Order: sequence, then C-alpha cells, then structure tokens
Amino acid sequence: MLRVLSVAAAARRPLRLPRPCAPPGPLLLGLLCRQVRAAAGSTGAEHGSVLKTPKGTRDHHPAQMALRERLFRTVVSCFKRHGAAAIDTPVLELREMLMEKYGDNSRLIYELQDQGGELLALRYDLTVPFARYLAMNKITNIKRYHIAKVYRRDNPAMTRGRYREFYQCDFDIAGQFDPMIPDAECLKIVHEILSDLQLGDFLIKVNDRRILDGMFAVCGVPDSKFRTICSSVDKLDKMPWEEVRSEMVGEKGLSPEAADRIGEYVQLHGGLDLIEQLLQDPKLSQNKLAKEGLGDMKLLFEYLTLFGITGKVSFDLSLARGLDYYTGVIYEAVLLQQENDHGEESVSVGSVAGGGRYDGLVGMFDPKGRKVPCVGVSIGIERIFSILEQRLEASEEKIRTTETQVLVASAQKKLLEERLKLISELWDAGIKAEVLYKKNPKLLNQLQYCEDTGIPLVAIVGEQELKDGVVKLRVVATREEVNIRRESLVEEIRRRTSQL
Amino acid sequence: MLRVLSVAAAARRPLRLPRPCAPPGPLLLGLLCRQVRAAAGSTGAEHGSVLKTPKGTRDHHPAQMALRERLFRTVVSCFKRHGAAAIDTPVLELREMLMEKYGDNSRLIYELQDQGGELLALRYDLTVPFARYLAMNKITNIKRYHIAKVYRRDNPAMTRGRYREFYQCDFDIAGQFDPMIPDAECLKIVHEILSDLQLGDFLIKVNDRRILDGMFAVCGVPDSKFRTICSSVDKLDKMPWEEVRSEMVGEKGLSPEAADRIGEYVQLHGGLDLIEQLLQDPKLSQNKLAKEGLGDMKLLFEYLTLFGITGKVSFDLSLARGLDYYTGVIYEAVLLQQENDHGEESVSVGSVAGGGRYDGLVGMFDPKGRKVPCVGVSIGIERIFSILEQRLEASEEKIRTTETQVLVASAQKKLLEERLKLISELWDAGIKAEVLYKKNPKLLNQLQYCEDTGIPLVAIVGEQELKDGVVKLRVVATREEVNIRRESLVEEIRRRTSQL
Repeated sequence: MLRVLSVAAAARRPLRLPRPCAPPGPLLLGLLCRQVRAAAGSTGAEHGSVLKTPKGTRDHHPAQMALRERLFRTVVSCFKRHGAAAIDTPVLELREMLMEKYGDNSRLIYELQDQGGELLALRYDLTVPFARYLAMNKITNIKRYHIAKVYRRDNPAMTRGRYREFYQCDFDIAGQFDPMIPDAECLKIVHEILSDLQLGDFLIKVNDRRILDGMFAVCGVPDSKFRTICSSVDKLDKMPWEEVRSEMVGEKGLSPEAADRIGEYVQLHGGLDLIEQLLQDPKLSQNKLAKEGLGDMKLLFEYLTLFGITGKVSFDLSLARGLDYYTGVIYEAVLLQQENDHGEESVSVGSVAGGGRYDGLVGMFDPKGRKVPCVGVSIGIERIFSILEQRLEASEEKIRTTETQVLVASAQKKLLEERLKLISELWDAGIKAEVLYKKNPKLLNQLQYCEDTGIPLVAIVGEQELKDGVVKLRVVATREEVNIRRESLVEEIRRRTSQL
Repeated sequence: MLRVLSVAAAARRPLRLPRPCAPPGPLLLGLLCRQVRAAAGSTGAEHGSVLKTPKGTRDHHPAQMALRERLFRTVVSCFKRHGAAAIDTPVLELREMLMEKYGDNSRLIYELQDQGGELLALRYDLTVPFARYLAMNKITNIKRYHIAKVYRRDNPAMTRGRYREFYQCDFDIAGQFDPMIPDAECLKIVHEILSDLQLGDFLIKVNDRRILDGMFAVCGVPDSKFRTICSSVDKLDKMPWEEVRSEMVGEKGLSPEAADRIGEYVQLHGGLDLIEQLLQDPKLSQNKLAKEGLGDMKLLFEYLTLFGITGKVSFDLSLARGLDYYTGVIYEAVLLQQENDHGEESVSVGSVAGGGRYDGLVGMFDPKGRKVPCVGVSIGIERIFSILEQRLEASEEKIRTTETQVLVASAQKKLLEERLKLISELWDAGIKAEVLYKKNPKLLNQLQYCEDTGIPLVAIVGEQELKDGVVKLRVVATREEVNIRRESLVEEIRRRTSQL
C-alpha cells in the first residue's frame, strides 16, 4: 500500500524537516545565511522597499546552477539517446492560444498588461505551445524535447519544489504510428531517467482514459459526470477511498451503488494478469472503449516486457490525472521509500514524472481541425532538484561551481606582468585558468583561493623559475611541487586534469 | 573609416536581401515554406484567429536550436575557461527593481497585469537583476556568467537579429580589485569569443566615461548637458559628424565653439601613442577625471599588450555607449568587412559585443548604498546567431538536429519484437538509437529515414542473422554491410561513431 510523504523525506537519511525560511537555499558554500537574511526582508533598499524576488520565484546561486546542470545533462542525454531534437517557443503567447486548454486552472495564468498591442500571457506549460507550434508549422511528425520555464500563479510550496516560475522538461512524439510503440518508449524513458538519477526505488503507474471512461459507464456514472468523477478518482493518491467516495456521493450526487462499483475497480492494480482478468470481466468486456483501452494496455505491457521494465510498472485503475486533454494511455511515476528500517511498507513521496497520450490537442489549433496524435512525458524536474539539493546538503559534499584547472600564481612581488603573460598562453591553449586580480597577492591567499574553489593545480612563476625557463606546478591536494619546462606546461596540466 | 552596414552583409557571399516575411526561418531542412505560410496568416484556427507567436518573438526549429547550441557551447566554454560560475535569476522582477535604471528606455519594459499581488515586470536585461542579486545576497565578490532571455517592447527588426524576446549572454566580474586587471580580462574574453566563432575581422573600440566627461568639461559643455551631449556622441557610429554637430548646437543648445572642440577630439582613435599624446594635451591633462581615465587606459593597454590583443583594440574617443550606469572603461566590438573585392575600405556591420565598468549600480540596491565595483561584457548573441544562420543557409550545409548513432531496422516482416529487444539493449548500453514506430516498415523507408536525418549506421535484424547470433551493420554513406556478433555490436557502434 502506498502512502504520500513529503519530498523532504525522499532526501533519505539524515531526514530533515522542511526549513522554516521560504527559499530553499543551497546551504552549499555557506550561502544560506545570506539568503535567510534576504528572505527575512532585512535588506530594504534606500527607497524603503524590500529587496526580494517575486513571490514563488528564486535566484539560483552557482552551487544550485552546478547541480541543475548536472541534472539537465542526465535528462537531455536520455532524450538524445532516443533521437529527440530540441525546439524552443517564446515564454510569451497570445492570450487566446492558452484559453480553453486548462479548464479551471486558467485562473493561474499570468497575463501581461495591455500596453497597446497584442494581449499576451506567460505560458502555463510546454504542451499547449507545442501543439500550437505543430499546427502553425503544419508539422505532422516530430520527436522533440523542450526544457524551459513555465509560469503559474499557484500557491507556492517551495520546500517541496513547487514554484510560480519553474522548469518543465518535456519529451513528446507526434505522428500517426502503429499503436503503443511510441507510448512504450515514453515509459522506457521515464525508467531510464529515474534509474540514471539514482533517486532510489520508484514505480510507474499506468492507466488509460478509455478504460476509466468505460469503467465509469459500466458502473452507472452518467456521461455528464465522467469528468468530475474522474477528478475525484484523481485524489486517491492523497485521500483514502472513504473520503473520495463521500465526495462522489455527497458533493457530486453519484448514486452510492455506482460509487461502490467504482470502489471495487479502483483498488485493482497489477500487470498482464490483471489486464487478462479485466478483458474477461463480464461488464467491462462489453464496453467498447474499455475493451479498446485494455487491448492497447496488453500490447503496451508486451512491449514493456521486451524493454525489461515491467518490474517497475503497475497497471493501476486508480490513476486518473487531472488534465482534460488526455485521450489514451496515462502514466505517473512516484518515488518509493521504505518507511522504517525494517522496510515493511513502501511509501510514495509524490510524483516525479507524468504524461500520456493527447490525440486531440493539435486539432484544437488547426484551422481545419486536422489531428496530430501525440504522446509525451514531462519530468518533474523541480521536485527531483529539491530532492537532490537536500540530499547533497545532507551529504556535506561540496559541489564545484567552476571548472578552473589551474591558478596562475606568484610567490614574489612585481610579477603581475609575468602572471598575465603566462595565463594568456594557457587561455590560448584552451586551459581553464584564473589569476587573482591583485598586483602583489600573498602566496598563502592564492593557495587559499584554490582550496576554497576546488582548483586542483597552481602554476607558480618566480624570479628563479623565469631564469630557468620553468614553471613550478603545485598539486593543491598533496602539496607536491614539481618544476615543469614552460613549453611542456600546457601538456602537463592537461595530463593531470584529464580525469577530472 | 568605418561605416555601418546591415548584418545581412556580414553573412558574406552570396549576399542576400532581407527576407520579405517576418520570421527569419531556418531555411534548413525545408522548413521555410511552412513558416512563410504561417507568417502570411493563412492558418487561422477554427475560432477565426490567426495562429502566430507574439510580435517580435519566434519559435526555434530543431535546426535553429542545433545552431544555437553550437554557439552557446563556444561562448560558455570561453566563460568557463576564465573561471566563471553560472547563476540564474527569475524572468519576473518586482516592477520597482527595474525603475530608474534605464532612463528613457523604461517605456520598453513589459509589465504584468495587476492580478492582486505584487506588481511585476519582465526583465529588460541581465545587468540590473545581477546588481539586485548581489545587493540582496550581500555578495561582494563573484565572477559569473548568465545566459537567458530578456524582454523589450522595442521595434523588432528580425532580419537583423532584433527581437522583443532575445537571449543575452553576460560575463561580469564583481569585487574590489587592483585597477584594470578584470577590465583587461573582459576584453580578452571578447577577443577569444569573436576569434573562436570565426566571424571574420573585428575591432574592439575602447573609451572611458571619465575621459568623455573630462573632454566635455574642457570643451566647455555645461555639467547639466554632459549626458545629453554624450548621447549625441553615441550616434557617431550611425551619423556623420556634421549631423551630430547640428544636433548638439541646434537641438541641444551647445555653443558652436564647444561643439567644434568636441569634434576635434572625437575623431581621434589609436593606441598607446594616442594615450601618451592626450596625457600631454594641455587642456585634458589639467582635468582630474580625464587624467584618471587616461592613466587607467594606459594601464589597460599595457595589460592588453601582455595578452597580445592590441592589434584588434582601438582607443576611440567617439565611443560613448548609451546606458547611464557606466562609470569607467567602456567598450564595443564591431565586425569589419571588406566592402569590395579590392579590400580598400573596411565597413562595420554593427556591434556584436559591448560592456564596461559600472561601479555604482549595486549601491543603488543596497540599503546602505554600499558599492560593489563591477565590470562586464555582453555578447550580442542574437546578431551573431543571425549572421551564422544566414551563412549556414548560404553554404547549404545541412545541420544535424539529432545525435542518433544507429537505426535499428529489419528487412522482413514480423520482426518488431526483435527490433525492440535489440534497441533496448543499445539504449541500456548508452547508444543513441532509433526505431521506426511501425510494425512492418519497408527497408527502403528505414534507409531513407537515415538519409534524411543523418543517422550514420543501420543495425539490421533478420531471420538468418538471428539464427547466426549476428546483426548486419550497414554504413549509410558507403552502403557497406558487415555482420557483427551481437555481443560485439555496442563496441562496434561506439568505435565507428566515436569521431562524430
């Protein structure tokens, strides 16, 4: 049985409580104190206002950027492994493009002031702009990824990675193909990314909108109530069945008998066996939609078997997903965690990926309503980032924010010109090098800078070395020093830092 | 003598006229026709509205993204070579943070609708958010780069790379250091990037706000007119001196004598010699500001000599730069082009990088007005992108939009399962692989897909190969086919694509 737990718990031991201050600072490189001060509003500017970023947004410090780049690199390399191309669309869209696509959530869209031109809004996700892009450019066939910021005037919960400005990380396949092959690839991608990121155990829940609709029909839910009952089912990952049932019956006016029939179905989850069982189900097997959905689900599981990933995939009749535009298979990945050291119960720490098939969305933009079938997945990058950030913090690992290979230093005074000449040679040879911006820095300060920023090597110029045509190369970690002929220095630095 | 030419000219032969349709499409992979159709507004959606992106914005197609990634890679690797860390700030800022920072240009700021919370705006550049970031986090020392989109309600000129949503690419050094060392590094960075990008010949013009102000003083410009006369001087790269002079005298009420004195100075440009000459100038040498500026300029040129880049740097008294916040050295890089085949006159194709020192901006945000000296450079990435895009288009080079190493194919029917099993093995081994989403694709279509998308290898499974425990590996370019034992396939694909 799965239970929901906060993302903080997913950061593993040592577990930490959500931090009291709003911005989940890096805690890395001692930046937290500054952030707390800033968040506490102590830094009012001259004109009396508070120095801050807008509600639900945050700056990224270098350590956070380094972690984020690491995360993006893993995700992008998976997308590229599957042959996806990158596209980009503007952060701004015409307001009308976003209308009637998000149901109730439209109220969360940021709108721009009418400054005497087009009426604009900030994009709410990457899926609707993708559909607009396909229709506008009459593209009927593409496999693309898109990593970019989206905007929602939602209630921020920043310790759990919920912001008003946040990244989405989407992979989608558009085109008319044989059934379930691209759908299976999307699940393979989720499996690869969550494995590559070493986030711990996870489960990918799968269902199909047609199976849900068929189930509602055979349980006696009137057509007009399909969507609202579906959104009740969607709450099963956060509420027990009893509460969901009373919402269905009490608030939404469903008959208790229908609710109870639904209750029997939504507790089912399994694999191919369950699909076979439902294909024999006297009621469901009579419903056209459900039968179609179950047939495709069977095919999907056959492909997932070939991919060797059925061990982490569960066909789960309680999975509904909120968005209106899904038309076929839907899925959601959750991280699992042993609740105690005896490892008896797995708890879910919330969704880290989700997606599904949406065959009708592009048609909403096309002037002639021409459809382009699409299936895709969105990686919950902010939640994963929160988990990795908290884990990094707990581990006390220090993440490097620069890639500098060598600091050009001097032990004596009046050698700035020699340092600049040498560093220029190194830069021109492609070596990542820094120099302190001081005329006569102390050697100790130069070495300390390397310690602080993780620079592994120091190239030291001195009177004697200049006479001898050498540079003293010092390994920061071991304090080993060796004279290298100036013409061999680039080679030597490359050799010593090639495995970094 | 430099003259201004459109960016289109910078794309070199064959020169092309600006395209008639607004969005400068990729022209790559045959996407233009679609774009033209879209831009012509022929794709009105069902509800009668036109499918488009907001004025001055555009989508990026895969070929454009591939080119952009190439460009960013060059720029970022230079920034990292100089030890910079990455940061990010929100696209949204509190409106008041942006006020009184851009002078007249404030009217170009996009403001968000008041939706019952904070008053927000879209950032106009990356420099003001950087200063806000430093003040808010009490950071007094950082070397950072930031590549991100900024927003200006300007008049778009898209064929010249001027958009309302566009990338800025900034490198800045903040901190109290010995004079001109970080300033010289910024110029070295501009030199490296423009050389690495092979954009052709270029020139970096350098001046100093203090020299300009000193010059205005000794020419008899009243203090109150410094800024407005400075903005007239700023137009010298687009207008002849006579016009600028008449603006100064006619519109701005400067005395003709003062204007003529300015006219003598602003035609001067050169190197160390000119600096020495001006240090002896009977009027300028008496002005404290000018003397400081000239002293630092001399120091700067000494450092640039050590970096070996004075050949492309010109001390130019006509360089003014518009922004108010500069306090010291300023610079701007322009591409040069031989105007005709006889190569007698170099023409400027406009600015591709610019920056300078701004020691007062952070203090505007700090509650106690504490200053953090800063110097930085912004690479004109959109203009460079336009040039590269047009050049690529003219060259008819086809840019790959994916990195797929191998297509898993079959020659016979009923082998989908075998294809999926093989591709799964390849993905798990880190090979970039694709498969057509068809149950029984024709071999010819599979080979054609490789031709179209540049996939170099095809792994073909067939009945006989399966029996023999081999896979037929085909090299698309040469049509060479060789049987590879299945257990050696990953190795073989890696070997054959390692140099790609």
